[in-house]
Amino acid sequence: MANISYTNKNKIINDPVYGFISIEHTLIFDLIGHPYYQRLRNVKQLGLTDLVYPGAVHNRFTHALGATHLMGKAIKALRLKNVNISDEEFEAACIAVLLHDVGHGPYSHALEYSLFDDVDHEYLSLAIMKKLNQEFDFRLNMAIDIFTDNYPKKFLHQLVSSQLDVDRLDYLKRDSFYSGVSEGVVGIDRIIKMFDVVDDRLVVEEKGIYSIEKFIVARRLMYWQVYLHKTVLGAEYLLVNILKRARELAESDIKLFASPVLKLFLYNRLSIESLKDNDEFLEAFLRLDDSDIYGAIKIWRYHSDPILSYLCSALVERKLFRVELNKNKFESKHINQIKKNIRLKFGDQDNWIDYLWIDGKIRNDAYKHDGEDRIMLKMKSGELVDLSLASDNLNISALAEPVEKYFICYPKSCGIN
Amino acid sequence: MANISYTNKNKIINDPVYGFISIEHTLIFDLIGHPYYQRLRNVKQLGLTDLVYPGAVHNRFTHALGATHLMGKAIKALRLKNVNISDEEFEAACIAVLLHDVGHGPYSHALEYSLFDDVDHEYLSLAIMKKLNQEFDFRLNMAIDIFTDNYPKKFLHQLVSSQLDVDRLDYLKRDSFYSGVSEGVVGIDRIIKMFDVVDDRLVVEEKGIYSIEKFIVARRLMYWQVYLHKTVLGAEYLLVNILKRARELAESDIKLFASPVLKLFLYNRLSIESLKDNDEFLEAFLRLDDSDIYGAIKIWRYHSDPILSYLCSALVERKLFRVELNKNKFESKHINQIKKNIRLKFGDQDNWIDYLWIDGKIRNDAYKHDGEDRIMLKMKSGELVDLSLASDNLNISALAEPVEKYFICYPKSCGIN
Amino acid sequence: MANISYTNKNKIINDPVYGFISIEHTLIFDLIGHPYYQRLRNVKQLGLTDLVYPGAVHNRFTHALGATHLMGKAIKALRLKNVNISDEEFEAACIAVLLHDVGHGPYSHALEYSLFDDVDHEYLSLAIMKKLNQEFDFRLNMAIDIFTDNYPKKFLHQLVSSQLDVDRLDYLKRDSFYSGVSEGVVGIDRIIKMFDVVDDRLVVEEKGIYSIEKFIVARRLMYWQVYLHKTVLGAEYLLVNILKRARELAESDIKLFASPVLKLFLYNRLSIESLKDNDEFLEAFLRLDDSDIYGAIKIWRYHSDPILSYLCSALVERKLFRVELNKNKFESKHINQIKKNIRLKFGDQDNWIDYLWIDGKIRNDAYKHDGEDRIMLKMKSGELVDLSLASDNLNISALAEPVEKYFICYPKSCGIN
Amino acid sequence: MANISYTNKNKIINDPVYGFISIEHTLIFDLIGHPYYQRLRNVKQLGLTDLVYPGAVHNRFTHALGATHLMGKAIKALRLKNVNISDEEFEAACIAVLLHDVGHGPYSHALEYSLFDDVDHEYLSLAIMKKLNQEFDFRLNMAIDIFTDNYPKKFLHQLVSSQLDVDRLDYLKRDSFYSGVSEGVVGIDRIIKMFDVVDDRLVVEEKGIYSIEKFIVARRLMYWQVYLHKTVLGAEYLLVNILKRARELAESDIKLFASPVLKLFLYNRLSIESLKDNDEFLEAFLRLDDSDIYGAIKIWRYHSDPILSYLCSALVERKLFRVELNKNKFESKHINQIKKNIRLKFGDQDNWIDYLWIDGKIRNDAYKHDGEDRIMLKMKSGELVDLSLASDNLNISALAEPVEKYFICYPKSCGIN
Repeated sequence: MANISYTNKNKIINDPVYGFISIEHTLIFDLIGHPYYQRLRNVKQLGLTDLVYPGAVHNRFTHALGATHLMGKAIKALRLKNVNISDEEFEAACIAVLLHDVGHGPYSHALEYSLFDDVDHEYLSLAIMKKLNQEFDFRLNMAIDIFTDNYPKKFLHQLVSSQLDVDRLDYLKRDSFYSGVSEGVVGIDRIIKMFDVVDDRLVVEEKGIYSIEKFIVARRLMYWQVYLHKTVLGAEYLLVNILKRARELAESDIKLFASPVLKLFLYNRLSIESLKDNDEFLEAFLRLDDSDIYGAIKIWRYHSDPILSYLCSALVERKLFRVELNKNKFESKHINQIKKNIRLKFGDQDNWIDYLWIDGKIRNDAYKHDGEDRIMLKMKSGELVDLSLASDNLNISALAEPVEKYFICYPKSCGIN
Repeated sequence: MANISYTNKNKIINDPVYGFISIEHTLIFDLIGHPYYQRLRNVKQLGLTDLVYPGAVHNRFTHALGATHLMGKAIKALRLKNVNISDEEFEAACIAVLLHDVGHGPYSHALEYSLFDDVDHEYLSLAIMKKLNQEFDFRLNMAIDIFTDNYPKKFLHQLVSSQLDVDRLDYLKRDSFYSGVSEGVVGIDRIIKMFDVVDDRLVVEEKGIYSIEKFIVARRLMYWQVYLHKTVLGAEYLLVNILKRARELAESDIKLFASPVLKLFLYNRLSIESLKDNDEFLEAFLRLDDSDIYGAIKIWRYHSDPILSYLCSALVERKLFRVELNKNKFESKHINQIKKNIRLKFGDQDNWIDYLWIDGKIRNDAYKHDGEDRIMLKMKSGELVDLSLASDNLNISALAEPVEKYFICYPKSCGIN
Repeated sequence: MANISYTNKNKIINDPVYGFISIEHTLIFDLIGHPYYQRLRNVKQLGLTDLVYPGAVHNRFTHALGATHLMGKAIKALRLKNVNISDEEFEAACIAVLLHDVGHGPYSHALEYSLFDDVDHEYLSLAIMKKLNQEFDFRLNMAIDIFTDNYPKKFLHQLVSSQLDVDRLDYLKRDSFYSGVSEGVVGIDRIIKMFDVVDDRLVVEEKGIYSIEKFIVARRLMYWQVYLHKTVLGAEYLLVNILKRARELAESDIKLFASPVLKLFLYNRLSIESLKDNDEFLEAFLRLDDSDIYGAIKIWRYHSDPILSYLCSALVERKLFRVELNKNKFESKHINQIKKNIRLKFGDQDNWIDYLWIDGKIRNDAYKHDGEDRIMLKMKSGELVDLSLASDNLNISALAEPVEKYFICYPKSCGIN
Repeated sequence: MANISYTNKNKIINDPVYGFISIEHTLIFDLIGHPYYQRLRNVKQLGLTDLVYPGAVHNRFTHALGATHLMGKAIKALRLKNVNISDEEFEAACIAVLLHDVGHGPYSHALEYSLFDDVDHEYLSLAIMKKLNQEFDFRLNMAIDIFTDNYPKKFLHQLVSSQLDVDRLDYLKRDSFYSGVSEGVVGIDRIIKMFDVVDDRLVVEEKGIYSIEKFIVARRLMYWQVYLHKTVLGAEYLLVNILKRARELAESDIKLFASPVLKLFLYNRLSIESLKDNDEFLEAFLRLDDSDIYGAIKIWRYHSDPILSYLCSALVERKLFRVELNKNKFESKHINQIKKNIRLKFGDQDNWIDYLWIDGKIRNDAYKHDGEDRIMLKMKSGELVDLSLASDNLNISALAEPVEKYFICYPKSCGIN
């Protein structure tokens, strides 16, 4: 599996972000080699973002390896501060983070609700972990407890999933690295060195405050500059609508080129219930990746359905939809004018408008200061203080206000220049 | 197209390797947006190398952009030394390098001779340039002259294709960057600043000698550590044999799942002649990318032909062939033992051995010091000296000896211990 | 001068931050070679900061080169947007920024008001430019006009000195690089590409907003993490008090080891008036650098004056003063207790307390949104908007509030607990 | 000491090369804080190299910290391969490398034989370690045994001093980093991961061969491009001759400005014997750093001795000597012409020529393949093979030939054309 050095206890994998990724447990190594995990090689980390940032073609496979690597670093840093973590817990925490994204479908978030009706990737990750647990003689029990926050040492779950988890630390750095957007660069090593545990919860030493502030800011900047980039949004809505149209045609029994597993999802409307009842669907899901979707879309460009072929050509030839963002609701006049243009250009019948017009709201929380999840600083006095209260420099409390924006999305040719 | 800033004369695209890539000509910009070029997004630069270096998932799209960016830098550096280069030549040289790889098929070099009988990617690049030239009102004439070395200013062709071209400069740096193998890092900026032109040929200023030596060494190291990595070779031979088997089945009229364009190539044995006669084949080629191949292989795992399904499973599940390298020919005894194991394990009939055993030679020239192509240093005295003679430090003349190695390749389970 | 390639129009100097620094004008090259500029090799950019960040030993020499390099990039970027800038203006703007810090004395800011009574480094820079102007046949006239903001194209002055000048861009990046504090990393290339000019003033294209926000945040983080680092402050106050004591002894005609030029400053209390009247003082200043100060302090450790030798030993042996920071005024009780400890430990006479106790306020403005100096964004509509109003993501308006902190500073041994 | 986080067992120092340097032993921490070690802050790692590479102003202080950091990494890597290393040995090996350069005088190698007659920095390092050993209750015993190769586990000494020691690993990377010469970049992490121990000797796993080859090549390139750079050599000979002249004047009882400790060295000709007899000289040495030398030279520019003032002005104003390098001996005619020019220009008496003309040989061994010190590869078979035999790619055996060059050095104004 990957470029590995077999040493007594340690395997290393080349990684451009960290230089090397160390894998120190045989079980983790076996999980990486499992087809369920190997599938992630063909699931791009950032969906269609490479249409805007062409270097950002990295996949979930390396992201989850990277996060696992950081988990190892975090645990070693905590042990140096006399936090008690057994070898079994070390392994389990690494497994939990290795598999945290194993339930991601093609193009990661872009199609999260297009293939299934109401199933998110975390639900699927857990379902897959449970399958693997059986295959591996229940050696994933503790990892599952940590993943589902049923393990007493809460900080292990927090390292897997919280506002300061190794998942975010890896993805900010990795997405920055591959996109070339330096705004997301974060001092991971420093942050991890500042981790501590108080009452079984993860905290950060006071002197780490600047690094944490930087991390919050970097995350917000990456959201608006990359994750919620207008052009990427436009591409993703195109993709969503392609699947929506394809399903509709499938339901009308119109023939569509597709791999066998993609067919299964197109011709069935699957929900959590269907998954629970039928392992076949999960098995099918575990064979599905970006190549099934893209391979189909390339061919659907020549489909006889004009809507489907229009949408697919737009995506493949990168004639992406225009997206407008606004702090306030768009004026009806503006909206109506664009809709009118769509109808003029594409005709009134055939519900073109359902596929060419999208509106809605997007939102980003840089930092949530309520709930269990907030980031606590351990002051030199020993006192614990919420990050947004401790920060007098960067005004994190102001940053903690979520930013919401309205958007509309439509073919460029229908816009009001 | 990509994350672009429309300024008066200049468009910029984010790139993790250089920070930014500048595109300064509208025609180039239009070529980038053309579907023929966009196709390269789905052609991995390093074929199956990411099975060993998991970060190396970059594509030909960004490589050719990067090389074009370096062409711009090289031309500006030469102009500062009073080398006469017109704006039209600037544009043409950039186009030549932008399109130099547009003829690459799926998985770049891995399948270069699997889809066609005797057509290499440079022939195809030229054919595609000619198609584009017609579409763009013959504005690619000069670019084609430069590409085919029919332009009087020979140095422009040398920048596109020689032992010190911008193609190599970009790929060494980019492949290092994405694979995480620091051995390939090269001081590109310094090399380009040392470029000069004498008698219409590209030369390097004497004081650039260390950078050039480093470049030759870096290239050799990248060959053995990445491009000819044993495990990558094993994967590529697996891929080649999958296509070979699929074609054979196709010729026997056995049904195979495949996209329409892939079918065309499987069911026809295409040669240069067929290409010349029939534009349909080139059109089909221009729709083919990695997703056609991988999408098919995933499904062929379940094909009823045991050889095909065996090979495809091995690739998808990353049970790659073992490769042994040797300076000398392998001993017959060793070879025979392995072949015997293959027959024992897979049976004697059905020509399994034709798909499970590969042998041959690989070779790497770090530097060729004969022919037009050699690198000439311009000494302070004005004299021109071949690199291998000028270099007294690194013994480039010793490096100039090509390295050849014998290899054998077979399923791990058939190896000896 | 430095590792230079003499090409027709272009000289290059190796620089670890940018790879290369290009010097494109002969006059600039001659100025770099002048002893007044060479002196900056021995003036550390960050004074005593390397006592905390040991890598940060870089000097004003490379900073000013770096800023000049960025000026060249900025001018080229603006020319691409059809901003009219003549070659003479190009050269003059580069000279203005090259020499903007030439008036820095030993240890940069740390001793800014210790050597002279009321003269800051900008006054001295201008005085030195004027001297150089005479020496160079008044070829610095335009540079001086730009430096003093008497040149009609205001944006040239803004590039030299404003909230978004090339000085700040270089020092943030360079200080981050050498200190290893990644929080200051800024996307300089992107920022410069976003520069534009409207009505002779520098503006930033709307789409550069994220980079500018990041720049403001990075600057604030660098202030608190590096420039105003507690331990650095403690060291700098020690240095200031060493000079204060040495001067006092000098005024009492007590003998002190010192280089001739340092003696001149110790035994004379120089003000702007004295500078104006007497070129000798400026000449002396131009021979003074860090080595004069540090060379003296090493020897003063063994001086018979107990206060001077105490302070010098503390600095050389890195027994630095403790600094406490507080958002509010310190309580009198706390202050009195420490002062009492100082008196107990060092005795009541001899005004030890004047040298061992420092208090005051420090302040940092991340962004000033009033006055000429504010950063204006050029929206796609063409409208100009102040950064703090345009930024809805990062709440720059909240950041624009200056942060003030009270501090006290004293020997560790006199602290409480 | 430096920017340190006091955690239970671990102190961290910011370092731009590695991000962080971890110090895990209290004794090491105390040694870093000792004035003998702090002195290294004022000893530049690369002497006068910053006259050519202006960024390269780093000091021995950070280099030795960096090497100590790598020692920690190496020991942890070896422990993962079941090499037995006790905590005491860990600490001792770190101390040995921390102090390996503590005997370096001003400007590192440049003045190594100018201050003492026949004493090198390793002798002095050992003498200082012994002094520290007494002060620290003989807790440095094992470190001294390792340093002097009297400890049974030979590999610990090899990590401190051999062709593949942590000293070289750090300095190649650090000198590359600060000079901006990317040719020296080396994959340190990978090399260290490949370390193993056989029969108490350090070996490298076979698969590390490419990294080791790159390391040898990088070292050779750094020698010719940085360490033996012509202009740097010219500056260093100037410095050596300044000291030579100053001593001569001192011996004639001519008065010279100098710090008290520099005076001691100028007015006494010290040898190993004198050091052994007299602790005062070692004490004096331990107060001497770059500032004593540079502080004096600045003032000697105005000395009445024309030779001394000429040489000092040349250095301070960067009017450096020209150096010519040649593979073969220089022709007498060429030499005589230059010498004649010197005599014409500077006069025949006064032995100017002894200070303005230098000739000699320089030499670089990229790899020595004889003796105890050679690098052994551990093949997969378990066999140990010398690097130069195992390497078929880069022809290390060819590189193993030392390169020698003749040089001459003289004032530019006396050159031919």
